[in-house]
Formats: sequence, C-alpha cells, structure tokens
Amino acid sequence: MTAPLKGYTILDLTHVLAGPFCTMTLSDMGAHVIKVEPPRGGDDTRAFPPFKDGKSAYFAAINHGKKSIALNLKEDGDRAIFDRLLARADVVVENFRPGVMERLGYGWEDLHAAYPRLIYGAVSGFGHSGPDAKRPAYDMVVQARGGVMSITGEKDREPVRVGASIGDIIAGMYLTQGILAALLDRDRTGKGRKIDVAMLDSILATLEHAVALTTVTGKAPGPTGARHPSITPFETFHASDGLFVIAAGNDKLFEKLCICLDLPLSDDPRFATNPARCENTRLLKRLIEAVTLEHTCAHWIAKLTAAGIPTGPIQTIDQVLRDPQILARNMVVDVLDKNGRQAYKAAGNPIKMTDAPDPTTRGPAPDLDGNRGEILRWLEQG
Amino acid sequence: MTAPLKGYTILDLTHVLAGPFCTMTLSDMGAHVIKVEPPRGGDDTRAFPPFKDGKSAYFAAINHGKKSIALNLKEDGDRAIFDRLLARADVVVENFRPGVMERLGYGWEDLHAAYPRLIYGAVSGFGHSGPDAKRPAYDMVVQARGGVMSITGEKDREPVRVGASIGDIIAGMYLTQGILAALLDRDRTGKGRKIDVAMLDSILATLEHAVALTTVTGKAPGPTGARHPSITPFETFHASDGLFVIAAGNDKLFEKLCICLDLPLSDDPRFATNPARCENTRLLKRLIEAVTLEHTCAHWIAKLTAAGIPTGPIQTIDQVLRDPQILARNMVVDVLDKNGRQAYKAAGNPIKMTDAPDPTTRGPAPDLDGNRGEILRWLEQG
Repeated sequence: MTAPLKGYTILDLTHVLAGPFCTMTLSDMGAHVIKVEPPRGGDDTRAFPPFKDGKSAYFAAINHGKKSIALNLKEDGDRAIFDRLLARADVVVENFRPGVMERLGYGWEDLHAAYPRLIYGAVSGFGHSGPDAKRPAYDMVVQARGGVMSITGEKDREPVRVGASIGDIIAGMYLTQGILAALLDRDRTGKGRKIDVAMLDSILATLEHAVALTTVTGKAPGPTGARHPSITPFETFHASDGLFVIAAGNDKLFEKLCICLDLPLSDDPRFATNPARCENTRLLKRLIEAVTLEHTCAHWIAKLTAAGIPTGPIQTIDQVLRDPQILARNMVVDVLDKNGRQAYKAAGNPIKMTDAPDPTTRGPAPDLDGNRGEILRWLEQG
Repeated sequence: MTAPLKGYTILDLTHVLAGPFCTMTLSDMGAHVIKVEPPRGGDDTRAFPPFKDGKSAYFAAINHGKKSIALNLKEDGDRAIFDRLLARADVVVENFRPGVMERLGYGWEDLHAAYPRLIYGAVSGFGHSGPDAKRPAYDMVVQARGGVMSITGEKDREPVRVGASIGDIIAGMYLTQGILAALLDRDRTGKGRKIDVAMLDSILATLEHAVALTTVTGKAPGPTGARHPSITPFETFHASDGLFVIAAGNDKLFEKLCICLDLPLSDDPRFATNPARCENTRLLKRLIEAVTLEHTCAHWIAKLTAAGIPTGPIQTIDQVLRDPQILARNMVVDVLDKNGRQAYKAAGNPIKMTDAPDPTTRGPAPDLDGNRGEILRWLEQG
C-alpha cells in the first residue's frame, strides 16, 4: 500500500475554500502539505461556524492532515524560512488576488528563475489575465456571472444558488488536475510550470448542455426546476409520502417504466420517443403521478430498481451520511483531534485506488503554527 | 510550447458524460485519446439534441479532438485490435455498469496481469463496491440521493436540480485526478493501478459546509434560495432593472458596502458582526434593497466594484458566452468540422498553463469509426 502522491511536498498558501479544497485532495492522495498561514488568525475559515470544542468544524473538514506554520512574508526571518521551504517543495499553491505574490517578491517569474523545477498553482475569481483579473470574487459572484444560477431554480421564479459552493470547488478541482499534469511533465522534463485557474472559467466549463443549446439555437435556456431540460421522464415525482426521482433516460427504460406502472403509454405517439415526451412533459407527469401517488417512495424505488430503472430518494444531508452505500464506500471519515480522539466527521476521498490506503480516519487539522518545530526540523534534515 | 500530457495515450470506452468529460480534459491537456465505440450507433450522445448539420452539437462539445474506432468487443477480429490498442495505451477509461468489463474478459484483474503498466479508470453511479454497486444511475439520481438537491432551491418549496450535470461532471473530474496521480506513480514504479470513482461519492465530497453543519449540530440544512447559508449579506438583491449579487464576505467588506450605499448600519449591533447579520438577514435585505432599487444593476455593480466589494450580474448563458472576461480568457472555442470549418462553439480549457498551447479552435469530434485507418496504421508503426 502506497499513496500515489507520497513523496511530493506541497507548499500551501491558500485560504477559505478553492485552494484548500485542492490541497485536501492532494493530501488525501498522499502528498505532504505544509500550510503557510499569516500569523494573525491564519486561514479565515478558522473563524467559520460551526464550532466544536471551540474550533471550526468547517476548517477541520477541509484542512485535516495538513501541517501549519505561521509566517509573515513581509518579515526577513520568516522569508528566509519560506525560501528554504520553496527550495524543498514540488508545488506552491496560492489563491490570493492576482498581484499579491508579485508584491511579496514571490511571483511566478521570480520563483521560476530561482526554483526551475517548482510548479506554481494559482486559483482566483477571474484568473490572472483579462480586464477583470483584479476584481474580488466569492463563490456566489461566479455562480451568478458564470451562468449556472440562470439555469438553476424554478421557471418564472428568481434564480437560486447551487447549494454546494461549486464556484470554489470546481475551480479547486481544475487546479488539482493542472498541478498533477504539470508534475507529470516536470518529472520528465525537469521544468516547472504555472497553472492559472479562474472560478468564472470553471463554472462555464461545467455547462456543456446549456452551452451547446445556446450556441446552436441562439437562445439561452432557463431554469427547469427539478426536471432535466431535454430528457423525459427525468425528474421528481410525488409518491404517497413525498418526492422521489425517476430517470428513464431512453426509450427502453421508458418502456420498462410503463410496464412497472401499468401505464400503456410506450406505443402512444405522444410518448413513444424522447422528443415527443419532452413536448408532453406536463401531461406525462400527471399520468405517472396518478399512479405513483398510490404508494410510498420506498415502494416505488424498490419496484423500479428491481426492473433496472434508475430511481432513488431525495435525501437530506443526515440521510446521506447514514446511507449504506456511502458507508460501504468509506465516504464518511473521522477527523481526529490532536489527542487522537474522533472529533469531527468529514467526507472521505472519492478517488478509490488499488494499493492506495483509504483510511477511515484523518489526521487532525493543524492549530495555527502548530507544526513549526516539526517543519523546521524537517528543513534541517534536508 | 508542449502540452503537459503529450505522449500519453488514453483508450476511451466511455459514453454520455462522466467518462467523456474526463477524457476531454485529458485531451485538452495534450493526451492522445482513442474513443472505442460500439459499431451500432456509437456513443449515445451522437443522438442527443441539439443538432447542427445533422450532427449532435452536444457530442461535439465533449468529444472534440478525440479519434474514433468502432469495435465489437464480442467479436474475435475486433478483440485482437483492442488487445493491440491496450498494449500501446497508458490508460483505459470506462463508465459501464460494474461487471460489464469482467464479462468481456477485460476486467481489471485480467488487464493488470496482461499489461502491468496500464492504468484503469472507471466511473459509475455508485462505484464498484457496496450493496448498490450494480444499480443504474443518471446524474439526476445521484443529485437527489447525494444530498445536493436537498440544499438547492427555495425554502418551503420543492427541491430543484442543479442546472449543470454536476453528478456526472464532478465524478469525471475526480477520475481525471485519480488517473493523473496514478500516472505520476506509475512513471516512478512501473506499476499500473485501478481507479474507481462513484458519482454518488463525488456529490457528497462537494458538500463541505453542509456536512460540517450536519455532523456538528445533528440537523441537516435545507435550501436557502439565492442566499449563502452562513454568510450575510451574500445573496441576490433587486436593483431598478433586475437582480444582481452582493457577496460581502466579512465585516470589512460590509463596512465598505454600508459606505457605498450610504446606510449607517455597520455599527448597529443588529448588523455589526456576521452572526448578527445572519440573525437579521431579512431585515438587512429590505434595508439594502430600499437603496439598491433606486438604480440599475450596472450602476451598483460599477460602484461596488470600484469600492472593492465582490458583486456581479446574474448572467444567462448567451451573456456568459459574450462576457469580455470569458473571451479574454479564451474560454469559448470553435470546434471545427472535418472540413476545417468552424462548426460549433464549446467551452474552452479552464486549466491555463505556461508553455502549454491554448488554441482557439478544437479538432473535430470524430465520426463513428472515422479514424479506423489512421489508428490501424498507428498500431502498425508500433
């Protein structure tokens, strides 16, 4: 058992979400992550609710297993330590506003000249180029400007935010991909690269269907509630005790669904093909619900699953965290505190890999500057 | 200029979205992607609307730059070709239902024995282990079961689907990360690995805040419309001509906002801290809108941006595709048809990297079996 990224050292200057999410994945795959934090307060999310035993569970969920050293990058002594860290690191990651690293004397050009093998990963709201590069952004701003809000929510109502912070998270994931690709290349060529990921760009990159539709038809799609915009039936339905999902993505599945529900619709020209079903989606929904309302969600999910039709419940987060499939996949892990006690729960690592450890616990999220001595000793051993 | 993944060959057995999205990113970073499709019809998305010149713009948006060969993996002659492709490939990627590859005699154990350096990447609805491994899934099913729908939408209304197919896309992105990490390891050790990513696991992995909240408080959060659940003000506001977003993520930004809006609220105990603002979010929204309704979105976005406050429009997809920042970042590319004409638009590559090409065009999406001759010749040259 060896984690695939064992032996790689990541110098992590990031805060809040996009950057820390990237370095969490690298850490989960075995990289050695050293979080370099500002001495006063450290990463902002140390102050984010909810708290447990006076510490942020939010910070713990994203920073477990990392080491922390507090460095004031405007102070000579701390800069000397940072320089030694740079000389030992494979990757430096930051999510400051563009220009901050340059003002500190640690911009890409300077770093690349001094440490040609070093990879430099940056994630920011709008990227390091373009007219709006220096504008501040949060997840909400890029969800709105990037278009995903315009297709999320109910028709004829105000757009809603995606409940997960996908503006940050998808950008952090693209940065992880870029860093790994650059490492692959560096291990062959010896030459580091800079990766520049923008949250706004990342949102656009996820809108495949909407982009194709808009560019071909010239018309931008709107939100469609709980329904897929171009597949029917592919939405939520009422059972006697609540809502569940049916996703009959092709004609064969629709035929099976009609048999399950005892509805003779699969030869009906109004419903025989997906384009026809999309034309008659409201009528079809009423016809299906006339049947599904007779029994519970659990009844229909069992019956449809037995027939091979994609279906399932709409779960709240507490239900997800108890879901037998989620637990069987080791997707809820215990984050330890520094005394080795199980202190928090967090999502596990979704990248399951042969011969890589997939532990049920994670090392503690570091106290601010909590690993200074250890990190300085590691530098000595260099 | 060299693309970081130049020289790596990906054998791509995937269809629809999660798998093809993964191999699209690998292709955009320079990998040689050979799409192996079933002879009858090929990838399902070849039949997905919208169409242009009789071809699916959706398929083109995700499969540009790949090569296609049609192989019947139950037929001896085609299996012999597939075996030769496996011997030349660095990675094989599939998103079949678990068990399909084993039945074809191409399961991980067999492949690993025959081609020890080969990486095997799989993405499926629920993963290759656990009680529900063999259940069928689509994006909608994992969005519902994975919990993201339960926190997306308006309070006291039915949950809505995230407009982007994040169930597929995030899983595809995790698979890309796993493949790249396994390649890094393989290039050192010579040993391939299997990566097994589940769409359900991937959704959970994005719910950082909701998971922390649920595990600490024991109470699952619900949807909060267009508002961030624990930061205020961080939501949409009405201007005279529509909605825009303000994301004042900390006290300093709130203070600046109060100055911009000429609202003396930053010393008011009801609004002085983020916890207090979260308690009084509805009142605060009314006070802010009393001012913002006086002018247009453009007015407020310009004014707040000048003051360094994160803000922005809620754009429809057509607006995003014309956004000067998006265009400056080369995030809308032309996909060529096989005659070299600009046929479709697609999202560009959000991973911007020094010394890597970032072309404004993409090679055509392949016709089914359209590169058979070329691929067979490449095998001869082996």
